[in-house]
Parts: sequence; C-alpha cells; structure tokens
Amino acid sequence: MKFDLLFKALSDETRREILKMLSERDMTAGEIADKFQKSWPTISHHLEILKQAELITDEKRGKYIVYSLNTTVFQEIIMWFMDTFKKEEKKSNV
Amino acid sequence: MKFDLLFKALSDETRREILKMLSERDMTAGEIADKFQKSWPTISHHLEILKQAELITDEKRGKYIVYSLNTTVFQEIIMWFMDTFKKEEKKSNV
Repeated sequence: MKFDLLFKALSDETRREILKMLSERDMTAGEIADKFQKSWPTISHHLEILKQAELITDEKRGKYIVYSLNTTVFQEIIMWFMDTFKKEEKKSNV
Repeated sequence: MKFDLLFKALSDETRREILKMLSERDMTAGEIADKFQKSWPTISHHLEILKQAELITDEKRGKYIVYSLNTTVFQEIIMWFMDTFKKEEKKSNV
C-alpha cells in the first residue's frame, strides 16, 4: 500500500535529511553521499527506499544521476494530514 | 528518535484508520475494536504503538479507557512537511 511505503521511508532520520537537502536543490548521488559519514552502499540503499516510496525521482544527466524531490507525493501526504486534522479542528469548535 | 516512531506508527493502514476514527470523536477501546474484523490483541497492539508515538492518548473514565487524538503531535508533523515543502515551492519560483 502506497502510504505504508511512504511513511516507512520517512521513519528514518538519514532519509529525512536527504529529503530536506533535496528540498533545497537537486543533487547528484555523489553530492548526497558527501554530506554523510556513511558508506555509499548505505546511502544508495536509503535512496532506493525513497525512490520506491516515490518521494524522490532520479534522472541520468550525462554521466551523473541527479535526484529530485517528488513534490506531488509530498502534497498528497500533506493533504492526508490536513484532512485528518481538519476534522479534529471542527470537532473542537462544536 | 521521535519522528522515527511517529512515521513508523503511521506506516500501517489499520493504525491510520484508527487515527481517522479518533479524528471524528474520542472512542473507547471496545468501540475501536468493534470497527475491525481483527482480534482484540491485534487492535490493542496497534493502540500501544500509536500511544508510544504519542499520536493518541488514553484516559480512564469510570470502567472505560477512552482514546483521543493528540492534536499537538499532528501539528508538529504538518509543520515538518510544510517546512520541507515550502522550500521546494520557493525553489520552483526562482
């Protein structure tokens, strides 16, 4: 189920940091890896989980793979939260 | 880490359904269990995970335990998403 994968992908601090970084600008795999004191296989595994959850997309540009945030999915999650939370606000006003 | 627990708790459809139900109104353990074709130990386990993540609170009222949505934590998550997402919007406008 899509939301299961989404939230599972978000439940790791390194992956959330990668998303924050990609919210600033698109980055190559190498640039992302440079920001962490972690092995490339570890970072590559995190990127794969984010990709499977469709939180990020990758694109080959020349000899580099460039990662971007998938804003559509972010909007969907925010909508889900707003939806659940709005009902709660309504309830408090009654 | 708090957000790890939060997102892990959200990565299950039954738990998300429980949250949706509690966004409508507070419910007793029995009322929640009645909505699912699942054993009480299963539902109880889901409630425990939601409680540990601080997404819900429980309160003893007479002989019942009543569960409520913790709106503060929901606001924190929405803030986190808005924060990550706002930067992305800024970037697209440049």
